[in-house]
Amino acid sequence: MNTHRAHARLAFRAGSFERGDRDLPAEVAVALSYNGSTHAVMLATPADLEDFARGFSLTEGIATPEEIESITAVELPLGIDLQIWLADGAAARQQARRRSMAGPVGCGLCGIESLEEAMRRPNPVPASDFRIPADEVLGAIAALENHQPLHDLTRAVHGTAFWTPEAGVIVAREDVGRHNAFDKLIGAVIAGAGDPARGAALLTCRCSTDIVQKATAAGIPVLIAISTPTSAAVRMAAQSGLTLIGLARHAGFEIFTHPERIIREDKADVA
Amino acid sequence: MNTHRAHARLAFRAGSFERGDRDLPAEVAVALSYNGSTHAVMLATPADLEDFARGFSLTEGIATPEEIESITAVELPLGIDLQIWLADGAAARQQARRRSMAGPVGCGLCGIESLEEAMRRPNPVPASDFRIPADEVLGAIAALENHQPLHDLTRAVHGTAFWTPEAGVIVAREDVGRHNAFDKLIGAVIAGAGDPARGAALLTCRCSTDIVQKATAAGIPVLIAISTPTSAAVRMAAQSGLTLIGLARHAGFEIFTHPERIIREDKADVA
Repeated sequence: MNTHRAHARLAFRAGSFERGDRDLPAEVAVALSYNGSTHAVMLATPADLEDFARGFSLTEGIATPEEIESITAVELPLGIDLQIWLADGAAARQQARRRSMAGPVGCGLCGIESLEEAMRRPNPVPASDFRIPADEVLGAIAALENHQPLHDLTRAVHGTAFWTPEAGVIVAREDVGRHNAFDKLIGAVIAGAGDPARGAALLTCRCSTDIVQKATAAGIPVLIAISTPTSAAVRMAAQSGLTLIGLARHAGFEIFTHPERIIREDKADVA
Repeated sequence: MNTHRAHARLAFRAGSFERGDRDLPAEVAVALSYNGSTHAVMLATPADLEDFARGFSLTEGIATPEEIESITAVELPLGIDLQIWLADGAAARQQARRRSMAGPVGCGLCGIESLEEAMRRPNPVPASDFRIPADEVLGAIAALENHQPLHDLTRAVHGTAFWTPEAGVIVAREDVGRHNAFDKLIGAVIAGAGDPARGAALLTCRCSTDIVQKATAAGIPVLIAISTPTSAAVRMAAQSGLTLIGLARHAGFEIFTHPERIIREDKADVA
């Protein structure tokens, strides 16, 4: 399935119209089905779907990569059925999670119960000696720009990459949905691309609470976003031990939480 | 509840760190509860929640504004419970819709059934004589910039506005979530701000299939987005009779579907 397609369009510039084509990103319904029944349907870029299955399964608390027995992407007329088969223990856990998720949409939970279900506190990031020199954060941001082929073509998808001080960008993923892009990246990292605890995730998209939850679920200690985070994302990152950097551009960046992982040559006080 | 909050941050610029504050947008869990049980939980900007209730209810096919008996936003420790009470007929319809939505997450539908549920074809936009001169599209885009107060403060929320040739921007809404911003706008329009069929919706965000579905559900005939649409959004807009304009900037714009609603002085062939 293609990740983009040329569409005819009529461009209006300087008072007159001109016909032409533009490459637009695909947006395909992807059903994530576990052991034969669907858990969720996401609108996504049809690429890197095995990574998507692994990352989504981990960040939704359904299964680790070791608990996944097989992943098959089946093309159907209306989209893609991503068929994931789980080992017995994870299958039972997924059934339980599916029953609890059914609450907000199907089983008559009231507002208080639904908010408690939706706002569960994320796992903390384990403490470690992982650190990044401040100057290298700028280099990481610049490197992300060289790993967005679908964005270069369409200017309309989100990009994310996993970066380490030793190797730079080791894997990058793109998607029309920012949460999908990040799930794909996490899936690629935990499939063996790198050790989540020894690198930083780079993001072109805005950083909301769902992104913070995914980073902590994967055990990634540093999140570097080009955009501005939300207030709730900063609060959640502070509680979870995650270093959250936003407004990361060529000229600089802003650290919102846990600056102790960023090595500062000027030794300014940061506590 | 505040729509933004100042957070301390450490800015790195030109090799050194500086302390300071930055205003970040709030992101609050909002439960949409109908007749006492929750239908969905969205992460949203805590403002214009009555508009959100009206717009979401319409675009999700649950209730028209006339079928809503009351809307109350109740602040809880973990978020907001938006309590919507429906008249009897709509309440029965919402129960049925809730049961069908439970499918993908709770009731064991397979991938084929879940994709059919997720990808239902939107209603067509009724034909009419509504037209916009091409030059005025440029004016509408420029006007949107003057109706984004939370964006001006935080640079991190989506904006949307309803514009008519006669009155310009008549209502505008913002949210951290693009679909929420558009539901709030639609809610404000159908609550009496204007006739959806006689104007255009302006959007700062990217235009995916969910945005096209919402516009057609509200009967808005023209969608003008600053960003690039997805390929699937263009296909859906073409089928639904919606005029979809993307890449709308000061210097020009691109029409992807149904250009017959845009009046062209140069009379270029557009069929």
